[in-house]
Amino acid sequence: MPNTNMETHKSARVKSFIKALEQGAPHPPVRLMLNSLHPAEIAHLIESVPLTHREILWELVNSESGGEVLLHVNDEVRASLIEKMETTEIVAATENMDMDDLADFIKDLPTTVSFAVVNSLDKQDRQRLQSVLSYDEDSAGGLMNTDTITVRPDVALEVVQRYLRMQHKKIPANTDKIIVVDQADRYVGLLNITDLITHDPSQSVSEVLVTSQDGIPANLPAAQVAHLFEDRDLLSAPVIDENGKLLGRITIDDVVDVIRDEADHSIMRMAGLDEEDDMFAPVVVSTKRRAVWLGVNLVTALLASLVISFFDTALKAKYQLAILMPIVASMGGIAGSQTLTLAIRGIALGHIGSSNAKSLLVKEITIGALNGVLWALAVGGLSSWWFDPVTGAVIAGAIIINLLIAALSGITIPLALKKLNIDPALAGGVILTTVTDVIGFLAFLGLATIILL
Amino acid sequence: MPNTNMETHKSARVKSFIKALEQGAPHPPVRLMLNSLHPAEIAHLIESVPLTHREILWELVNSESGGEVLLHVNDEVRASLIEKMETTEIVAATENMDMDDLADFIKDLPTTVSFAVVNSLDKQDRQRLQSVLSYDEDSAGGLMNTDTITVRPDVALEVVQRYLRMQHKKIPANTDKIIVVDQADRYVGLLNITDLITHDPSQSVSEVLVTSQDGIPANLPAAQVAHLFEDRDLLSAPVIDENGKLLGRITIDDVVDVIRDEADHSIMRMAGLDEEDDMFAPVVVSTKRRAVWLGVNLVTALLASLVISFFDTALKAKYQLAILMPIVASMGGIAGSQTLTLAIRGIALGHIGSSNAKSLLVKEITIGALNGVLWALAVGGLSSWWFDPVTGAVIAGAIIINLLIAALSGITIPLALKKLNIDPALAGGVILTTVTDVIGFLAFLGLATIILL
Repeated sequence: MPNTNMETHKSARVKSFIKALEQGAPHPPVRLMLNSLHPAEIAHLIESVPLTHREILWELVNSESGGEVLLHVNDEVRASLIEKMETTEIVAATENMDMDDLADFIKDLPTTVSFAVVNSLDKQDRQRLQSVLSYDEDSAGGLMNTDTITVRPDVALEVVQRYLRMQHKKIPANTDKIIVVDQADRYVGLLNITDLITHDPSQSVSEVLVTSQDGIPANLPAAQVAHLFEDRDLLSAPVIDENGKLLGRITIDDVVDVIRDEADHSIMRMAGLDEEDDMFAPVVVSTKRRAVWLGVNLVTALLASLVISFFDTALKAKYQLAILMPIVASMGGIAGSQTLTLAIRGIALGHIGSSNAKSLLVKEITIGALNGVLWALAVGGLSSWWFDPVTGAVIAGAIIINLLIAALSGITIPLALKKLNIDPALAGGVILTTVTDVIGFLAFLGLATIILL
Repeated sequence: MPNTNMETHKSARVKSFIKALEQGAPHPPVRLMLNSLHPAEIAHLIESVPLTHREILWELVNSESGGEVLLHVNDEVRASLIEKMETTEIVAATENMDMDDLADFIKDLPTTVSFAVVNSLDKQDRQRLQSVLSYDEDSAGGLMNTDTITVRPDVALEVVQRYLRMQHKKIPANTDKIIVVDQADRYVGLLNITDLITHDPSQSVSEVLVTSQDGIPANLPAAQVAHLFEDRDLLSAPVIDENGKLLGRITIDDVVDVIRDEADHSIMRMAGLDEEDDMFAPVVVSTKRRAVWLGVNLVTALLASLVISFFDTALKAKYQLAILMPIVASMGGIAGSQTLTLAIRGIALGHIGSSNAKSLLVKEITIGALNGVLWALAVGGLSSWWFDPVTGAVIAGAIIINLLIAALSGITIPLALKKLNIDPALAGGVILTTVTDVIGFLAFLGLATIILL
């Protein structure tokens, strides 16, 4: 099990910078310290400090690292930093960006600024950018880089070696494979750099190329690209169009970002938050966003109150019903959200689909029934002792009913949302709680009205 | 935003296999279809089918892929598969495993079987396994492979090339760098394979080696190793002991697993589940696990009921209190879990530490106050209309109090748990709900008793 608590190193860094700024340390040494960090680390630092410190730190970042830092901060922080930059500064920051990064970056810029950035590119790069921009950001085409080095299958390995030596500084970082294409630029296979070194230089590329790795279609969703990289331990993979023509390549570092984002997305969405939100966004902005989520959940709570209000006769007659009723709703909510979480994760990982949903539903309902009986006995016994045996019987019956409904809802709600193309992580919890609250109060107070009155 | 719903390809595969098995398809074609998949894909399939199908599929897996498949399934599924294997089969399955994988694998085996596996290794591999096993599974040492290719700084590049050509088939997959060590096996720097190709063969390694990448200490926690790879876009990194001696190297494919596990861990733990649990575990096993979580949460619910019972006079006098009270508890719970989720993620990513906790707390409490006033007005107004203005005033006051407490708890509870070395994702939600339920009922019914009676 991974330990998520061991962030001592990063926290310590944030601490030392905040301390330096608060004690009014002179800027030159802070600048030196700051720019000795990797751009991703500067970005982390900028995300972790409150707004006042953030502006000071951003001004101290060297212009060479500026672009990289902007790529590593989350969307909201990036927007706030860009807002205060001159157009020329922004254009300078884009200078060494990869095409996939530039494509993401340019989408968030004001139109005039994005024109200035496009104008700064040469013709070839403009075409490359156009190619990446024509695909969805969350597809293979949106993830790809266009800086591929390609060779033909009929040349000799020594020719490839000579060619690479000429390219020298232009070989992209993390190149472990060279892509082999035919004369029509169609993807043929891969030449491992290690094979290039270890084989007889007089052999031709076609003799050592690896054809087992298929090209990734440009419209494949990013999540599926990530699973492909994970399952096959890939470092890079060629991206092709519908005719098999090579468009670019995806590298593992971009895939790692997809995996991290995907995970953050589920966690944050389940609480009605967005993974790209700035932790230190202005209070009014954050308040508005949270208010929306509270409003949605208020509807749930009001529905539950409405259900309770139908049973005012029972509540007036037996005050213990008011004392015990939250237990029924709460047990249903907990059991339901366990099943829901399992289902949301299973759907995201491709474990759950129409073929095995029924088996899983049967399993979850059986668990619900067993736990229903177990906790019905426990809570029923307790309530009998606290109040009277009839009240105990009523709550026992309500718990069994609510735990069965919870299991049923925990599987069916996310599957239905998925079919409707609604994110189950975002809406699943709210709908589930509404169901378990309403059914919980209905079952408990309804049974009580029938039996007690 | 990543799309987590697009798992059509994998779901379709699971579906076609289940269909084939249910229609009683003859085993030879199923075996053929199954073994044409990558081991990770076979593992995914085995995790996704119910128990009866699982056994049949596992028997059809070719023995060469068996070991890889076992490495890719989750711990619980692996244990159930191993249970039914002969010792000789298990030993055969371990044959081509990397040392880090073997170290993970061997820990879960019965003692006699693990002895048989160790006996099947040659002396060098036994020492390597010993080295990996001496580190925590969730540290750099536990993640590393020992199959490193090393060179000395004083040799010429052409000598390195010749050496690699001799190694030929033994060069590990995904080798993008060669590690440079001194005569005492201490880590010196890295030689990029691309530099090896593009530079003049007569140059020495020391002229082109890269020294900017530090060795990773063997005891660095896996989560920090992952952040290092993410921040610096690494593909591989050397692992060193406290004296700087090279122990092995970590590759990005193992880091990707750490990132995926870490994310799964947070999601599952927040619902009281474990990421290594088998979705199709026997019903009794799953029921027991879920029962524990329901029991813990029952204590929360009982505490809330106890609080309500203190106010039986008020409840008997005003039945509308019973109708409205779940709203106060629910609004507090929702607001609190938003803050909690933000804090849990921030702690995991190293964004939140002692230095900025105070700024964040101030921000969250301000948001709580603003949303408290907003929703107090809304719910207060509604309750005035539904019942009477005094009831409206009471619920308005209670909502403000509970939203402030929710913000306070959402930050302080996970930070306190982290200090106590308790996983905030596991225990945070339960404790928070207890607080918001108890305070919600206490504030609402308490204010009502003072004002209404």
